[in-house]
Amino acid sequence: MRVRLDLAYDGSGFSGWAAQPGLRTVEGVLSDALTTVLRAPQQVRLTVAGRTDAGVHARGQVAHADVDSAAWGSLPGRSDRPASDAAARRLSGVLPSDVVVRRVSVAPEGFDARFSALSRRYRYRILDDPTAADPLRRHDTVLVRDRLDVGAMDQAARGLLGLHDFAAYCKRREGATTVRTLLDYRWDRDPAGVLEATVVADAFCHSMVRALVGAAVRVGQRREATSWPAEVLASGHRDPRVTVMPAHGLCLEEVAYPPDEELAARAEQARAVRSVD
Amino acid sequence: MRVRLDLAYDGSGFSGWAAQPGLRTVEGVLSDALTTVLRAPQQVRLTVAGRTDAGVHARGQVAHADVDSAAWGSLPGRSDRPASDAAARRLSGVLPSDVVVRRVSVAPEGFDARFSALSRRYRYRILDDPTAADPLRRHDTVLVRDRLDVGAMDQAARGLLGLHDFAAYCKRREGATTVRTLLDYRWDRDPAGVLEATVVADAFCHSMVRALVGAAVRVGQRREATSWPAEVLASGHRDPRVTVMPAHGLCLEEVAYPPDEELAARAEQARAVRSVD
Repeated sequence: MRVRLDLAYDGSGFSGWAAQPGLRTVEGVLSDALTTVLRAPQQVRLTVAGRTDAGVHARGQVAHADVDSAAWGSLPGRSDRPASDAAARRLSGVLPSDVVVRRVSVAPEGFDARFSALSRRYRYRILDDPTAADPLRRHDTVLVRDRLDVGAMDQAARGLLGLHDFAAYCKRREGATTVRTLLDYRWDRDPAGVLEATVVADAFCHSMVRALVGAAVRVGQRREATSWPAEVLASGHRDPRVTVMPAHGLCLEEVAYPPDEELAARAEQARAVRSVD
Repeated sequence: MRVRLDLAYDGSGFSGWAAQPGLRTVEGVLSDALTTVLRAPQQVRLTVAGRTDAGVHARGQVAHADVDSAAWGSLPGRSDRPASDAAARRLSGVLPSDVVVRRVSVAPEGFDARFSALSRRYRYRILDDPTAADPLRRHDTVLVRDRLDVGAMDQAARGLLGLHDFAAYCKRREGATTVRTLLDYRWDRDPAGVLEATVVADAFCHSMVRALVGAAVRVGQRREATSWPAEVLASGHRDPRVTVMPAHGLCLEEVAYPPDEELAARAEQARAVRSVD
């Protein structure tokens, strides 16, 4: 029996999503909590939509776990509420304050948190005016020294949209494709003066969002033309002038899935395209 | 020579504003930083607009300090920039990341950060839906178990506006008046589902905002009628049903001052009214 978990976390205190021996990771903490709540004889394993790096946050992360249906059914819930509610409440009693399980639900047939996803949406926050700094947001906002031209950054970002080989913005991995569809990439300044990037793609390769942000920042500093990020993309090679920006400005905001009847087909298709990524 | 400091801080790591031996306080940290930057022979003393309690945050705090004009003038700034800019930059180099000096300026004649202020504006943040919790905002948002009726809370809040003796919402202090003018008090729900209170008064007595919020929460839980907070006010006595809400939901957002030519008169007037508070 497969359950879907909708999650939010403050990445500051984690060595990223993926479980690693001896390190505090979101996967490790959540897997422990699920194993405890379900009294599972073996560690519950998780599959996640976005394997966030150390320090990266999430408000809309999605994971799935295959659990024993007997253990699930025996969760002490109230008769008028489904076992999902009991699971969510019990998980919140076990989890530390920097991870929140917003929703637990029985996954529909064919659902795979990673491969059924149609797209991932990330946000990146930058402040370019130290006198406007909000210490309460220092954990999810990156401060840069130079004032940035947000209009130029937005124009540069839009020049990257579409289906491309993003090798120039990816850490290459053996056997993994770097072809992605960038569905949205734009820059706005919010009322508090913070620059926010919205970045949506079918999937991202490693460090891709933070490299895309780094290229735009260089344009915002007027050190490169607005056409430069697209030129780097076309070259197919990483450019040392593209900085991979700090992790703490980045947050996974949303993962989108197709209607239930298309979940299995979508998973099959994505698995074929992204063999190892 | 008097300088004005505009400040923001994350109150989580501080035992409040006021310097206390052996405790980490905002005043202590800032006074040390100013003393260092100005190479003052004696500890620089500060006067503040809002003496925030332990755990309370600020985005719009204002303080003043009387400094030696020779030390001020010798700050190594660039010739095209005033000493204020050099002071702000040097302070930011010395201060920890949970305090930001947003602006340093030479105070106009008659300015007193505390007594010249016309009003203080606070914000209080409450989330009433655990499944919507954002771990990145857990340091400035209070989670309550029951769903709250924000319309009823707003109506109750507006019933408290005006010039009153707020003794029922204050910790009484010998020789201090509890008469205040509540200029604004309202409740809204933001797009993320967070309930935000806006509370503005000429001045606040100790724990007043958090008690006003506690009374409204009880109305929001439908445990009392919307008229109840005004009835408590009229009684003139603290009511044990009014909870003083947790500090970390509270933030001092703004301090308002009159035009320069009215600063001295305003300070004289406020000093006469609030002798010891």
